[in-house]
Amino acid sequence: MSGTSVSPLAPAAFPAMLAVAGVRLATAAAGIRYSGRDDLMLAEMPPGTSVAGTFTRSLCTAAPVDWCKQALAASSGRGRAIIVNSGNANAFTGAAGYRVAEHTAEAVARALGAPAHEVLVASTGVIGEDLPTGRIDGALGGLVAGLAPAGPRAWEAAATAIGTTDTFPKGASAPVAGTSAHVAGIAKGSGMIAPDMATMLAFVFTDLAVDPPTAQECLAASVEKSFNRITVDSDTSTSDTVLLAATGTSGQSAALHMADFQAALDAVTLDLAHQIVRDGEGATKFVAVSVTGAADDAAARAIARAVADSPLVKTALAASDANWGRIVAAVGKAGQRADRDRLAIWIGDEQCADGGMPKPGYSEERATAHLLGQDVALRVDVGVGHGEATVWTCDLTHGYIDINAGYRT
Amino acid sequence: MSGTSVSPLAPAAFPAMLAVAGVRLATAAAGIRYSGRDDLMLAEMPPGTSVAGTFTRSLCTAAPVDWCKQALAASSGRGRAIIVNSGNANAFTGAAGYRVAEHTAEAVARALGAPAHEVLVASTGVIGEDLPTGRIDGALGGLVAGLAPAGPRAWEAAATAIGTTDTFPKGASAPVAGTSAHVAGIAKGSGMIAPDMATMLAFVFTDLAVDPPTAQECLAASVEKSFNRITVDSDTSTSDTVLLAATGTSGQSAALHMADFQAALDAVTLDLAHQIVRDGEGATKFVAVSVTGAADDAAARAIARAVADSPLVKTALAASDANWGRIVAAVGKAGQRADRDRLAIWIGDEQCADGGMPKPGYSEERATAHLLGQDVALRVDVGVGHGEATVWTCDLTHGYIDINAGYRT
Repeated sequence: MSGTSVSPLAPAAFPAMLAVAGVRLATAAAGIRYSGRDDLMLAEMPPGTSVAGTFTRSLCTAAPVDWCKQALAASSGRGRAIIVNSGNANAFTGAAGYRVAEHTAEAVARALGAPAHEVLVASTGVIGEDLPTGRIDGALGGLVAGLAPAGPRAWEAAATAIGTTDTFPKGASAPVAGTSAHVAGIAKGSGMIAPDMATMLAFVFTDLAVDPPTAQECLAASVEKSFNRITVDSDTSTSDTVLLAATGTSGQSAALHMADFQAALDAVTLDLAHQIVRDGEGATKFVAVSVTGAADDAAARAIARAVADSPLVKTALAASDANWGRIVAAVGKAGQRADRDRLAIWIGDEQCADGGMPKPGYSEERATAHLLGQDVALRVDVGVGHGEATVWTCDLTHGYIDINAGYRT
Repeated sequence: MSGTSVSPLAPAAFPAMLAVAGVRLATAAAGIRYSGRDDLMLAEMPPGTSVAGTFTRSLCTAAPVDWCKQALAASSGRGRAIIVNSGNANAFTGAAGYRVAEHTAEAVARALGAPAHEVLVASTGVIGEDLPTGRIDGALGGLVAGLAPAGPRAWEAAATAIGTTDTFPKGASAPVAGTSAHVAGIAKGSGMIAPDMATMLAFVFTDLAVDPPTAQECLAASVEKSFNRITVDSDTSTSDTVLLAATGTSGQSAALHMADFQAALDAVTLDLAHQIVRDGEGATKFVAVSVTGAADDAAARAIARAVADSPLVKTALAASDANWGRIVAAVGKAGQRADRDRLAIWIGDEQCADGGMPKPGYSEERATAHLLGQDVALRVDVGVGHGEATVWTCDLTHGYIDINAGYRT
């Protein structure tokens, strides 16, 4: 966690997380970059665990992302462990960086008696600096010795260890209806967040049995509706990774509970995604941007993203300024079909604009009252079809600049 | 001009502008939004003047943009006057807004004895509020009476009257080699600036004779290399307008001096575009982002724009922080072909990265020394081809948020 104070949008406390049978967690302080805090997290899963992954669409992927993709291909979607460090992204570190990821996986694999390609690796932090393997090697013995079942305190410690500029640890869990199984996950992310996952990591676990192709399908569908719908600053990271591990330890199979499993998975990923926005760098408001009446859902999403990414909209939100003209401008720049003369805009429940002009009787006072709250809803109907989408974002404040103009120092 | 102090990147003084024969200018205070300053500008050109225009690509165009497009079509590219107001964009004002633009054109046309479709209209300022025609009507008599040849002081007054959040008036001029003719222009723009012109207005004049289709071609080519290559905050406006008026009063024709005319026009538009970036809201650094080695020039431009628009790159620049990892991330998100393992990055003359990793011997001290200056050059070679492009931008500072979180109040 960074030295800045906790986001005003943070939940009151870390949630009471459900256990996931078969998963053991540990954290340790390797001193990679931070001192006085844990910066290593290890999750161990039983043999036969399915692992699915979605990764950044950046073309400049970090070495651990390359490693994970190859490992998941080599293991046909099986995994025994996930090792994560914070403070150094091991990104833009060339062939040597890839060897560091590989070396880390091999060391964990030796310690757990698992094949190296069943160890997934994720790193987050500064780009372009060598990740010192010695630090991780030195901490590994204690890390493995400390592995303990994933109870509430272990989840919180794990979520805390993987954070960088995060101001609170992020976790969420849900039962799978009709079974004794759970879905639980942790995430990190605060800046460099764009819909295509950006600088964020999330690790989600279930004790249902899910075969690897199904796990991949369910995860991809879930990420599409959650992590791919959030934006803090439109920046996409080199390191984004979401992994789903299904241990099967509950003895029940997702095959017989598919809808309930997807629903629990969706609830956990959406909750984690919202927490990332609530920890958006400098955020003082949690903002849902909904677009209706677009040509199709993809167009709606593009328009919602244009509004959510607009620095002018985001600075107006920071000031609780009902400057809906900036929403009009953002819709206009999205490059998607919209009928200017049928455009309608709402701030909360207050309709500002209708039929391409200010709505008679619009009360700026009521719109401002809504904006003064911490949870803001903006809606735009673009008047050309039935496509709709919601994107979540936060406001753009001095805090964002304070954090990002001084991150490395 | 706004109440904030002049940009630290502003030129020492308004340039000594060349005259353009046949053009007369006037300004007036109509009190549309601002008090104690001129907010109306009228440029009058002689009969037969060619006018070319390029406009915002926003789908939510402002009423004056719609008017200009129709007027230029109706007049086959001829124009007698340009009337501009600041403080109110007459955007998102429905059919009534269009009638206001039309009414303004008709009123100017009557006063000058010209057809209404030879009067171009531009408005800049707040979106979604009715533009009070009475204010413009009331000021029009004095405005027309004040028309005077476009000498240095008149150019500066005109450039000042069209500004909104601008902190200095913007003008540039150049002689056309081999002729006695000149090209001179004024511009406004400070925020909501993206490569596709954004909230900016520019009016460029020449006393060469240029037929309308040629004027349009020359202007489009020039805008592509200047106003379409700048970004302050990636936001595109509803009102962007660049007009070129060619009076022919010099008695010489561009047809015989095409290359020299284009060169003078390009010099003026690039100078004005750079001045807009130098007045970027809150800017403390003028930044050139050059991309080489891309698949083609369009790919290079997309990558340069991704770097120039990245809030994380821009906040690092504000802090003179040589955090080139953020440049890597921005290149990765651009969605254009790039070879991560051949990527090379320069800050000023200092090479930070080579072959996809930090360059041995790289001096962060030298890179930081360059970043501490007001003129910053970033270069990225993406290692896949011969495409290249440069985009100009500024840093993202607390000043941007100060200005935009309080613009309307």
